[in-house]
Amino acid sequence: MNSSEVTQKGRLAKAASRRLAVVPAETKNHALEKMAEALDKNAKTILAANSLDLEAGEKKELSRTLLDRLSLDGRRIKGMIEGLNVIRALPDPVGELLADWTRPNGLRIKKIRVPLGVIGIIYEARPNVTVDSAALCLKAGNAVILRGGSDAIQSNIEIAKVISEAAYSAGLPENSIQLISDTRRETAEELMGAREYIDVLIPRGGQSLIQTVVKKSTIPVIETGEGNCHAYVERTADQKMAADIVFNAKCSRPSVCNAIENLLVDDAIAAEFLPLVKQRLDAAHVELRGDAKTLSILPGIKLATEEDWQNEFLALILAVKVVAGVDDAIYHINKYGTKHSETIVTRDDKAAKKFTDEIDAAAVYVNASTRFTDGFEFGFGAEIGISTQKLHARGPMGLPELTSYKYVIHGNGQVRQ
Amino acid sequence: MNSSEVTQKGRLAKAASRRLAVVPAETKNHALEKMAEALDKNAKTILAANSLDLEAGEKKELSRTLLDRLSLDGRRIKGMIEGLNVIRALPDPVGELLADWTRPNGLRIKKIRVPLGVIGIIYEARPNVTVDSAALCLKAGNAVILRGGSDAIQSNIEIAKVISEAAYSAGLPENSIQLISDTRRETAEELMGAREYIDVLIPRGGQSLIQTVVKKSTIPVIETGEGNCHAYVERTADQKMAADIVFNAKCSRPSVCNAIENLLVDDAIAAEFLPLVKQRLDAAHVELRGDAKTLSILPGIKLATEEDWQNEFLALILAVKVVAGVDDAIYHINKYGTKHSETIVTRDDKAAKKFTDEIDAAAVYVNASTRFTDGFEFGFGAEIGISTQKLHARGPMGLPELTSYKYVIHGNGQVRQ
Repeated sequence: MNSSEVTQKGRLAKAASRRLAVVPAETKNHALEKMAEALDKNAKTILAANSLDLEAGEKKELSRTLLDRLSLDGRRIKGMIEGLNVIRALPDPVGELLADWTRPNGLRIKKIRVPLGVIGIIYEARPNVTVDSAALCLKAGNAVILRGGSDAIQSNIEIAKVISEAAYSAGLPENSIQLISDTRRETAEELMGAREYIDVLIPRGGQSLIQTVVKKSTIPVIETGEGNCHAYVERTADQKMAADIVFNAKCSRPSVCNAIENLLVDDAIAAEFLPLVKQRLDAAHVELRGDAKTLSILPGIKLATEEDWQNEFLALILAVKVVAGVDDAIYHINKYGTKHSETIVTRDDKAAKKFTDEIDAAAVYVNASTRFTDGFEFGFGAEIGISTQKLHARGPMGLPELTSYKYVIHGNGQVRQ
Repeated sequence: MNSSEVTQKGRLAKAASRRLAVVPAETKNHALEKMAEALDKNAKTILAANSLDLEAGEKKELSRTLLDRLSLDGRRIKGMIEGLNVIRALPDPVGELLADWTRPNGLRIKKIRVPLGVIGIIYEARPNVTVDSAALCLKAGNAVILRGGSDAIQSNIEIAKVISEAAYSAGLPENSIQLISDTRRETAEELMGAREYIDVLIPRGGQSLIQTVVKKSTIPVIETGEGNCHAYVERTADQKMAADIVFNAKCSRPSVCNAIENLLVDDAIAAEFLPLVKQRLDAAHVELRGDAKTLSILPGIKLATEEDWQNEFLALILAVKVVAGVDDAIYHINKYGTKHSETIVTRDDKAAKKFTDEIDAAAVYVNASTRFTDGFEFGFGAEIGISTQKLHARGPMGLPELTSYKYVIHGNGQVRQ
C-alpha cells in the first residue's frame, strides 16, 4: 500500500504538471493570493495540528532546537503569508524567450524557458518549508511532491490540505501540490527512485539528509546548503575591516550554511591580527581551535584536529590556521571547502584576482561577509536553497533556477540533406 | 589495484582541472592544434593499435555494425583532425560575464562562466569519441576522464597517449586528459561513485549504457541520446510536405537518435495520406507496423504491439497510429516519447501552438524534419551529445553546456545586518 502512495501521487502530479506548464501568470498569482488568505483563515486548525506534533515531539524527547523548528504560532503563520505575497510579486519566469535565431536554411529556432515539470522536495521538521516550496514551485509552473519529516506530519498534512484546496479553487490544476503522508524511510526511498514521475529532487535540510538523497536517488538532484566556508585575511588586509567581517560571518547567525567555520590568516600579520580578532570573538563567546602556529600566538586555545577543518560546526566555534600566503589559502580552501562561499580580505588586487579566479565555490567574496550568499541578499526576491553543485544551478536558487528550456523550431518543409 | 586506477587518475585530473580553469584561450587553441598534428604524425601507430582491436573483435565475433564502429582508417583519422580544427575555431566560453549588478549596499555581484571541473565520459566502441570528448572538454576548460569500451581499448590507449602528450607539450597542465585502461565493469562502477574527483558524468552510447549510468552513478549525470521521436501529420497538413518530412526523418539516417520511430496521422486524412506516405517509404524498404485503424487502410502491414510504441527501432521500421486530433497526438507523444525531438506538420497555427506549448521535449518542430536536432545544425559548431533531461542542459549540448558559473562579489567591508 505504501508503494501505491508514491506511484499514485506521482502520476497525479505528472498529469497536473502538463496542465500547469501553460497556466498564465495571472492564474498562478491569483492562486498564491488565495493560498495566503486560506492560511490566515485556517490558522487555528493549523495551530491545532501543530500542537499534536509538538506533543508527540515532547514525548519523543526531541531537542529544544528541533521543537523550536517544528513549532508554529501566529507570527510564523504571518511569516508564511508574507512569503507567499513576496513570491506573488515576482515576475513569472515561464515563457521567457532566451534566444531566437534563424539558420541559413530558414529554420527559426527559439529557446524558451519552460517549467522543470514535477519537483520533489525532501525536507525535515520546519512546516514553513511546505508552504514556501509549494509556492516557489507553482510560481515557476511546476507541480510539487512534498515529503517532510515525520515530526511535522500533522502540521504538514493540514497546511498542504489548506493551500492545495485554495490553489485548486483559484483555477490551478487539481493535484498540483502533493504531500506524501507516509513518513517511513522506505517511502522516501521509493520517492528517490520515482524517475517516471519526478524530474528533479531538491533536499532541504542538514548534511546527512542531503548525502542520503544524493547517494540513493536515481532522479537528478540539486544539492543544497552544505557550507564549510572560510574567511582568509591576506597580509595587506585592513585589519579592522577583517575583524568586522570575521565577526559578522561567524556570529551573526552561526547555524546557517553561509556562516564561516574557518579563519585563515597570513603568517606575516598573524601575530598582530589574531589577538585583535580573538578579542572581538571572545565577546561573543566563540570557541577557537587553532593549528600549532595559531597556538603559539594564542596559547590558551584548543588544538584543531583534521575533523575541525572538514566539519561544518554550525555553532560558535571557529577553526583557525596560519597560512603562508594566498596560494596556501587557496589550496586549503579547495581541499576542505564545500564549494559554497569563501571570502578574502585584502588591499592587494592581484591577490584578490588570484583568489576569485582559483577558488572553486558558488560565491567568492572580496572584502565582504560570506553571509550575503542568499537569494534575497542577491536581489532574487526568493530562494529555494543554495546549490553547492555545478550542474544546472550554482549558489542561491530563485525562480529561474526552477525552470528548464525547450527549443521550438519553425520551418516550411525543411528536410536534412 | 583496480581501485587505485580510478582514485589515482581522479586525483590527478582534479588537480589538473584547477590549473586548466585559468588557462587562456590561446593556450587551449594551441594545444588543439598540436593534438591535430600529433594525430596526423602518429596515424600509423594508431591504425596498428586499431587493427589489434579489430582482430580481437573478429575473434569475439562482434557484429559487422560494431566492427564498423570500431574500425579506423586514414579517412576517419582525417575526420578526427577536422573535428579538432572546428573546435579550435569556436569561441572560448570560459570567463564570459553572464550578469553584473550592484546591490543597494554597494556589493557588486558578477556572474561569471567557469568550467565544470572534471568531466567523466563513459562510452562504447567508437575510438573517435576519445578525441572528440577530450577536445570539447579541454576547450571548455575541463579536465576529462575517459572510459571507453573494452573492444576499443588498444585504439583508445594509443589515441589518448598521442593527444595527451601533444596537449602537455603545448602548455596545458599535465594530466588534463586521463584514460581509464581497466575496462572491467567494476572499474566503471567505481568511476560512477567517484564524487570526490568527478563533477559530471556524461554517458555517450546506447540506451542500456545510459540507463546503467543513470541508475548507478552518485555523480550528477547528463542523460543523452535516447530518441523515441514522432512525426504527427495534422489534418490541415500539406500532404506532400508531410510525406517528405516523414521520409527524411525516418530514412536519411535511421540509426541515429533524432530519426523518427513513430508516425501519427489524423483520422480525417488517414485514408488519403497513409497510402501516399507508404509509397514513399516502400521505396526505402521501410517496414510499417500499424494500429488497427492503420491496418484497415493499409491491410498488408503488421500490427503494432505495445513495445513498438515504446521502443527506439534505430532501423527502417516505423510504427504508425491514427489519432483523433492534436490532443490525442500530444497525449500519445507525452506518454511514449523520450523528450527528444517531435514534429507536427500542419497549416493550422492554433494546432501548431498547442503542439509546441504542450509537448514535453527538448526540440519541438513545426513543418520540419526532426533530423535537425544536432549541435551543428543548430549552429553551435560542436556537440557532445543531445540531452534528454531537463536539468542543466536540454537538447544539443555545445561548449557552453560544458560549463557552470560562479558569483564573484566585490565589497568594501560590507557585513550583513
